Amino acid sequence: MSSVDGVGTKLKIASALDKHDTIGIDLVNHCVNDIFTCGAEPLFFLDYIAMGRLVPERVEVIVQGLVQACREVGCALIGGETAEMPGVYTGEDYDLVGFIIGVVEKEKIIMGKTIKVGDTIIGLPSSGLHTNGYSLVRRIFGETKSALNTHYPELGRALGEALLEPHRCYYHQLKPLLPIIKGLAHITGGGLIGNVPRVLPQDLTAKFDSKAWTVPPIFQLIQARGNVARSEMFRVFNMGIGMVVICSPKDADRFTKALPESKVIGEVIKQGGKARGIQGVR
Amino acid sequence: MSSVDGVGTKLKIASALDKHDTIGIDLVNHCVNDIFTCGAEPLFFLDYIAMGRLVPERVEVIVQGLVQACREVGCALIGGETAEMPGVYTGEDYDLVGFIIGVVEKEKIIMGKTIKVGDTIIGLPSSGLHTNGYSLVRRIFGETKSALNTHYPELGRALGEALLEPHRCYYHQLKPLLPIIKGLAHITGGGLIGNVPRVLPQDLTAKFDSKAWTVPPIFQLIQARGNVARSEMFRVFNMGIGMVVICSPKDADRFTKALPESKVIGEVIKQGGKARGIQGVR
Repeated sequence: MSSVDGVGTKLKIASALDKHDTIGIDLVNHCVNDIFTCGAEPLFFLDYIAMGRLVPERVEVIVQGLVQACREVGCALIGGETAEMPGVYTGEDYDLVGFIIGVVEKEKIIMGKTIKVGDTIIGLPSSGLHTNGYSLVRRIFGETKSALNTHYPELGRALGEALLEPHRCYYHQLKPLLPIIKGLAHITGGGLIGNVPRVLPQDLTAKFDSKAWTVPPIFQLIQARGNVARSEMFRVFNMGIGMVVICSPKDADRFTKALPESKVIGEVIKQGGKARGIQGVR
Repeated sequence: MSSVDGVGTKLKIASALDKHDTIGIDLVNHCVNDIFTCGAEPLFFLDYIAMGRLVPERVEVIVQGLVQACREVGCALIGGETAEMPGVYTGEDYDLVGFIIGVVEKEKIIMGKTIKVGDTIIGLPSSGLHTNGYSLVRRIFGETKSALNTHYPELGRALGEALLEPHRCYYHQLKPLLPIIKGLAHITGGGLIGNVPRVLPQDLTAKFDSKAWTVPPIFQLIQARGNVARSEMFRVFNMGIGMVVICSPKDADRFTKALPESKVIGEVIKQGGKARGIQGVR
């Protein structure tokens, strides 16, 4: 089980604020969540950092974030490459890519095959935007220091600080519950709409109850300031749900008890029309 | 055995000439050579392509190169990520990163421990700059289309064409000879000077006979036009040697017979002074 990923233009926010200590955490947690959706345990991690001009102190801070997050999930940071590419990356820009290798026993791979009508959909809260939607956010607010340092009462902090909130890792919370997990969707680019249907069998879909959880203030702020349609918000952002678990209704209580922040947010229903849509969040 | 790498600013030449069909070959061959220095056989490959704005046709052409090179070494291209990062990558710029996983039996890992004084150093020809030295080249010649399209009689072709010559893969040629290989150095950034010493035991060094091979015209051209010191040339470029093999003198004939292009280019000697230098190429 392996995956390769970046953190998107969250990097631009980190550069604008010259704060690079958590972007490595974002990357590792994103990758760990990604392979965990198949039930895989992280084993090895490698990174690639490219800058126009190498700034060793910045690389060091980024790597510290990687090390910290790898340590937290017991994953070995076995290597990496630091590339200096003048002309490709300009100014403070850089890219950060992670490559993860995990392992899962063949018979324990989560394939979603046992998911059936009536199964419960549980949502685990995200810590913020995680690593998606930053291009839209930058278009709405700009990426100047003053825009990012603006304090919003509804956030209780500056915009930039809220935007850099590290991607949450669900590995430790969910691992003990793996035996009763039928399906897992990591809510990344595409939101609930883009990520949940593909873990479901062809003839099923998800019906969400969007009143079951409160969309966090950061998303409400983005929607209001950018005048973004609600349906687009649900396509671009996680809207407060970072990981979706599908389980048998009889097991739902075990999740909500073990993970007090988790909520039942929907159920699996028969797929109606031709389109492979989900319901309740548009 | 795993490695992560990019192809450096060779990408800028590919972009300037809008020719992207071989850059994927560069990446795979670079990665395959890298892990092969430990004796590892390539198993899996993953790629990461990031652009400011995704151009599907360009991604497709790049991926075709990856696929072709992976197929040639029997390596499975098991995944990849294509990222759109407006503002990080501008204009035609992009980055391309490869992650490779290979395997080698523990007792067959090439560690260089058996290398001793008097061992033979064999050089295998490079096909060009491979993936190193492009920032210096761009500083000397510029990266305009007209500079890259200039025909040089000594190259027998345009500069840009020579610069995009794909990175050569040594896997198939050297694999049958693995049992008699004591050490392998892939000549990348740092040239012979940077890459050979680190495969040798602490108390030994390499003595090269730089008359044993002819530095290819592309390097002579770069040196002359850029007025680059010979010692710097050997620190930045492979100077015509893409892979270095260290073997027992009694086995040297087997290499030069099996690989007619290979040449004995030096020998292993006792490390003299304090500095960890190599001899004969400055």
